[in-house]
Formats: sequence, C-alpha cells, structure tokens
Amino acid sequence: MLGRLNHVAIAVPNIAAASAIYRETLGADVSEPQSLTDHGVTVVFVDLGNTKVELLEPLGESSPIAAFLEKNPSGGMHHICYEVEDIFKARDHLIKEGARVLGDGKPKLGAHGKPVLFLHPKDFCGTLVELEQSAA
Amino acid sequence: MLGRLNHVAIAVPNIAAASAIYRETLGADVSEPQSLTDHGVTVVFVDLGNTKVELLEPLGESSPIAAFLEKNPSGGMHHICYEVEDIFKARDHLIKEGARVLGDGKPKLGAHGKPVLFLHPKDFCGTLVELEQSAA
Repeated sequence: MLGRLNHVAIAVPNIAAASAIYRETLGADVSEPQSLTDHGVTVVFVDLGNTKVELLEPLGESSPIAAFLEKNPSGGMHHICYEVEDIFKARDHLIKEGARVLGDGKPKLGAHGKPVLFLHPKDFCGTLVELEQSAA
Repeated sequence: MLGRLNHVAIAVPNIAAASAIYRETLGADVSEPQSLTDHGVTVVFVDLGNTKVELLEPLGESSPIAAFLEKNPSGGMHHICYEVEDIFKARDHLIKEGARVLGDGKPKLGAHGKPVLFLHPKDFCGTLVELEQSAA
C-alpha cells in the first residue's frame, strides 16, 4: 500500500528565516514562499532530488500548525506524508486494521490539489501521518 | 551542498510493534531488526522506493534516543538525514555560516558505515539534522 515519501513537513515560526537557513546555511534548492489561504499555511518547498521538505509558517487565525508551534516555538518536524495509489482503498484498509483516520474520514483536497487524509499520531509511533493519493 | 534525503528516523518504544504497524497497517516493505550495539539502537528499515524511514528502538544503557523517548513515550520523529558529497567541506561551510555542529566537530562513522555529523536543532528550525557523506 505505502508508496513514496512525498514530503516531510517542518513547522517554522518564520518562513523567511527558515528559507535562509535552508538556502544559505545548508545550500539547498529552496522555492519562493506560497500562501495557501485555504490550508492556513505559507509554504516553501526544499527540493532534495528524491523527495522534498516543506517549511510551513502559520497563516491566518486558525492555522492547523498554530498549536504545534505554541508547544515547539523554535519549530520542528510536524508530519510525514506518504503516497498511496488509491486513497479510499487505503482508508478502508486502515479502518479495518483498527487505525484512526482524523476528521470525518472523507479525503480532502490537500495542498498539492490531490486527495489527502491524516492519521492519528497515537496509532503511528507518535507521528502525524498524511496520506496523499499519487494521482489527482 | 544539500543532497538527497537519506532517511527520516522515528524513535519508537517497541520495534516489534512499530514494524507491525508499518508492515501490516501501512502495508510497507519493512526489514528485519538489526542491532547496532555501537550506536545504541536496534533499527528497522522501511523502504519507500525513493528514500527510507528508519525505526529506532533504544539498545543498551546509554542509547542516544533514550532521553527523547522519555519525553515522547509513544515515539516520534527524532531526526532527518540529508546527504552531502563531502562532509568536511559541508562542516567548514556550516561553521563559517555560524551553525553549531554537535560533539567535537569530527565526522564519525554512522549506522551505514559512512561519515556523519549532527547539527544543533536550535540552528535548524527545531529539527535535529544528520548529514551523511554519500560516498564512504
């Protein structure tokens, strides 16, 4: 079921400072910031060749990463996103295995315009897992 | 400077349980556990095609992940490992940029038999960063 690692998301308090760290200190290929109002984040993509890191800064009043940054003011790894071929098949298998899918269990359009689901960290080694369907 | 994402390390309290979650619940390609006495961890590799996740369970009295698991008893993402071509060149650049390299600044042989360095999380968005030289 599990496909490629799509991205690792790192929540950061300041996207300009985080971009400079990745671009200058680490010498990585870093995109310009994009504001994703619907998702409550500003995102910068760090292209690593085989996969990517996404730096996320809270955007707006109810950002989904605001609580995480309150607990981790310097930032930190927020979630890991794996690709699956068929998100509905993946969801049904996970529920059958007793794992908790967050929200109402209906895939939503994620930040890349593809259907995504989030899984409960307590069922996955303390790690917030995003599943993204590899085809839109 | 920054090359591919080599792995994401997830610290877990129980490697057998974590392996079952990745193998059965998530349907991933999971290796048998390997005890790395010198590194104080038992490791399982999750092959994701483009990169890998490493599940780490503490081994022995002074495991480098013991303190992390005391703070995060269910486990969690412990560090992220990026490849670099030349670890000495990378280190010198990082120090010039004002970033803190952990330990005495001398690369050690990592769990894959290649030279590695760890960087201070406070200088990298709250994330513990491992750099691994891509050639041994």
